[in-house]
Amino acid sequence: MLGIKNIASYLPQKKVSNYDKKEKFELDDDFIENKIGVKFHCVKEDDEKASDLCVKAFENLVKKTNIDKGTIDCCIVVTQNPDFNIPHTSAIVHGKLELSQECACFDISLGCSGYIYGLSNILSFMKSNGLKNGLLFTSDPYSEIIDHDDKNTDLIFGDGASVTYISENPLYVPKDFSFGTNGKAYKEILCDDKLYMNGRAVFNFTATTIPKHIQKLLVKNNLEDSDIDKYILHQGSKYIVDTIRKRLKVDESKVPFDMYEYGNTISSAVPIILEKELNSNHKRLLLSAYGIGLSWGSTILEKN
Amino acid sequence: MLGIKNIASYLPQKKVSNYDKKEKFELDDDFIENKIGVKFHCVKEDDEKASDLCVKAFENLVKKTNIDKGTIDCCIVVTQNPDFNIPHTSAIVHGKLELSQECACFDISLGCSGYIYGLSNILSFMKSNGLKNGLLFTSDPYSEIIDHDDKNTDLIFGDGASVTYISENPLYVPKDFSFGTNGKAYKEILCDDKLYMNGRAVFNFTATTIPKHIQKLLVKNNLEDSDIDKYILHQGSKYIVDTIRKRLKVDESKVPFDMYEYGNTISSAVPIILEKELNSNHKRLLLSAYGIGLSWGSTILEKN
Repeated sequence: MLGIKNIASYLPQKKVSNYDKKEKFELDDDFIENKIGVKFHCVKEDDEKASDLCVKAFENLVKKTNIDKGTIDCCIVVTQNPDFNIPHTSAIVHGKLELSQECACFDISLGCSGYIYGLSNILSFMKSNGLKNGLLFTSDPYSEIIDHDDKNTDLIFGDGASVTYISENPLYVPKDFSFGTNGKAYKEILCDDKLYMNGRAVFNFTATTIPKHIQKLLVKNNLEDSDIDKYILHQGSKYIVDTIRKRLKVDESKVPFDMYEYGNTISSAVPIILEKELNSNHKRLLLSAYGIGLSWGSTILEKN
Repeated sequence: MLGIKNIASYLPQKKVSNYDKKEKFELDDDFIENKIGVKFHCVKEDDEKASDLCVKAFENLVKKTNIDKGTIDCCIVVTQNPDFNIPHTSAIVHGKLELSQECACFDISLGCSGYIYGLSNILSFMKSNGLKNGLLFTSDPYSEIIDHDDKNTDLIFGDGASVTYISENPLYVPKDFSFGTNGKAYKEILCDDKLYMNGRAVFNFTATTIPKHIQKLLVKNNLEDSDIDKYILHQGSKYIVDTIRKRLKVDESKVPFDMYEYGNTISSAVPIILEKELNSNHKRLLLSAYGIGLSWGSTILEKN
């Protein structure tokens, strides 16, 4: 049975402090710590590209698990800030990691919901093609598109990447997925040269759509809150995570909030937390992510 | 059983003639007709984007088959020239077509091999998520990135789009897929502002890798040339299609060459031909596509 065998991530060492921006944006500590929940955000080096962050995440994966690169037969990169639009970044990662020519590679273009879609994608693609060992990367370096005069985005996003190793005898296996889209609202988060985000509209969408969507997935699977050990929610902002948690009436201890030191890493936000929970012996985890598109997706992972 | 229920395509009416470029590029008719095999290439309007071409392909689909838009639960766009990098173009198409909020949407970034990957992707993703009615779009408007002084690219590429309707009781079902990647050669086709292609390197890769790859897929499935009614090959150029056909020792009548009037439409090249063969009662079709990445993929379709 295929599932999540391991996860590694990479966060650039270089950090920018939001406390240094208090004057420019007229912020107080409460806003930084309790509203957005980002004290520092990670920033890659100027000459690093999405594929470089993937390679660094892979180097961290190799430090904690034995991987024979020659056995990798599927490599997917989830990104909306690719090295180039042509070719796909997964081909560049394939070349840098010197993977086998038998390896299927493609990119998935999705933002915040990308890890959930990517997980469903790599598992279903591998299963139906009889593939055995896959790498699912997320890498979306927003520092390339941030407008540093825009308070709505400059304070929130951080660079980061993750890699999920998909193989036999996994730690966790998805039990079910659920997806949704509201494409009519696509302009609420848009990048035409620089990133634009209508924070209020995105918050309203998240606060109304996501709790219901999560509850529906639980009901569909005959599960209750007590069956879920942790809810790993996309780290849009502290206010968003808190709002969803409260509307779900879930105890704070079950909903990790983790982005204080690195920011919102888009499709890497969920796997960066999942990596930390992977060996905690939880029976069941609920993952949910939402944003750009507008797009959302959730899954329930069960311990194998 | 899910499979290909129908296909429609869209080619812009505006055409550019390669005969008008004979002087500029010092061409003769033999080069235009027998080497590249592109007499005219289609060019979209300046204000049209990838999503607009998808919508026009969908309008052509609706003309020939009954589709209840409310039942569409999966929408994928294969493109490397998206409307924007953020959001994914499939969200924009979702909004323009007013699809249901229950619809899963994502883009796949792949070039020439994109239809084969996309077909495997949409079928496996839909099957494992219990989805019933999907739309697989290809839309890669290269007119946005062509360097008009570059003979290697300006003469070849044309704008176009396709949509494949995936549903129950299909006409054709894929029997098997095979994929490959040579990421070390990713720079041979690259777009950093304008498109660059090393035509010689791409030809050499295609001529050596693809015939063996196709033969291997046939052997794996215990099939011979006589079991295949048509080979639908990516229309890279007439010389590439002819070379692969000759190396496979396949009769010319079994290998459609179709791009004279519209050019190389990247991931739309295979489905544009497949649409024409869909109602011809063939028992078995072999589809193969190759290019950017470098990436390749093939599948065998069987009549349902």
